[in-house]
Amino acid sequence: MLFDVFGTVVDWRSSVARDVNEIAARHGITVDARAFADRWRALYQPAMLRVRLGEIPFVTLDVLHRQNLEQVLGEFSLDTLNEVEKADLNRAWHRLDPWSDVVAGLERLKQRYIIGTLSNGNIALIANMAKYARLPWDVILGAEIARAYKPQPEAYLGSAAALSLAPQQCMLVAAHNSDLQAAANCGFRTAFVARSLEHGPAQKTDLVAQGDYDIVAQGFADLATHLNC
Amino acid sequence: MLFDVFGTVVDWRSSVARDVNEIAARHGITVDARAFADRWRALYQPAMLRVRLGEIPFVTLDVLHRQNLEQVLGEFSLDTLNEVEKADLNRAWHRLDPWSDVVAGLERLKQRYIIGTLSNGNIALIANMAKYARLPWDVILGAEIARAYKPQPEAYLGSAAALSLAPQQCMLVAAHNSDLQAAANCGFRTAFVARSLEHGPAQKTDLVAQGDYDIVAQGFADLATHLNC
Repeated sequence: MLFDVFGTVVDWRSSVARDVNEIAARHGITVDARAFADRWRALYQPAMLRVRLGEIPFVTLDVLHRQNLEQVLGEFSLDTLNEVEKADLNRAWHRLDPWSDVVAGLERLKQRYIIGTLSNGNIALIANMAKYARLPWDVILGAEIARAYKPQPEAYLGSAAALSLAPQQCMLVAAHNSDLQAAANCGFRTAFVARSLEHGPAQKTDLVAQGDYDIVAQGFADLATHLNC
Repeated sequence: MLFDVFGTVVDWRSSVARDVNEIAARHGITVDARAFADRWRALYQPAMLRVRLGEIPFVTLDVLHRQNLEQVLGEFSLDTLNEVEKADLNRAWHRLDPWSDVVAGLERLKQRYIIGTLSNGNIALIANMAKYARLPWDVILGAEIARAYKPQPEAYLGSAAALSLAPQQCMLVAAHNSDLQAAANCGFRTAFVARSLEHGPAQKTDLVAQGDYDIVAQGFADLATHLNC
């Protein structure tokens, strides 16, 4: 059982906003921290696209986040941060809170399956997040192992291969239809878990399953029940 | 805290011998199963050396074990095994029992440190072994991540880099002086834990620490105590 992480497992928006608020307050600046988080996240796909298209060599998500952070700090008039503060804020992505159903659900699934990440996050990021959020992963896979970013097929196929499993023996759990469709195209089994607040109360995308998935679950407890865990 | 696995964490000799005995019994053959395990293990260094020297491209330990198995089966007159049996016996290395102090010691260390593997075993092997033996790793690193076999420096440096840590922030725990010396040369901190029965009661090597290590511990409980865990 391999899991998308950002949005599916953890609430990146509230967590990043919390850290942005904290550093802004230290500088006596008022900032729309959720808008900051949204903007930072919005720069993630174009940055990965440059890697996918081969415009730049593979670099980790920490590096892409750091490059994008410069731009967002400028846009939100927070560019007075020093280097140590910027490095710490970049690690906000290592300190993301899980959705409330996640840890108990993973513990149930772990009794029966290998549970791992299939994320675009790099190993250090996912490992630190797991310590912070008590996520009991058996294995950390994804972009850095495959040296390819989802939805490139290599990201899914490389993660299955690292476990010596056929794609058909793997299930991707994700809150994003595009991720699940790419995984299904590689032969993975699929489980959709809606996260209707990932992008805040006005979210319009990924509210419902838009594909013929093996499982559509209401959170990780329901997912574990579907799988008799 | 990064751990060598074969010998340091798990008792490969007894565990492999158990599976060899089982399959030999099914074929009505009597075999010196411990000698079989020793011989299979002895072929491991020369096989890795061919990778290290660049004679063959990087392949996983599962692949090297499988190639070596053919030779050992021939030497021990067990070459009547069919392909399914050979594949299953090769996975004996995924089903290794931990030394008795390991799981409790790791659980203590895990409360305070990231605990991971720095093994020449591939990800699938280490992940399956962890499920079998209930080893609570936070992260699986080592040869397959670095695409280099210990004691090549790239294996240690690549594992530290995957955690975004400097070598000085990492400690290798191992029962083998050569491994610890190579890690120390890369800047790692070091902990020696003697496993005087790894090679059976006649073991002559690695009975004592032969280096200026940060810690010399009597098992993983003592190691955890040294580190105030």
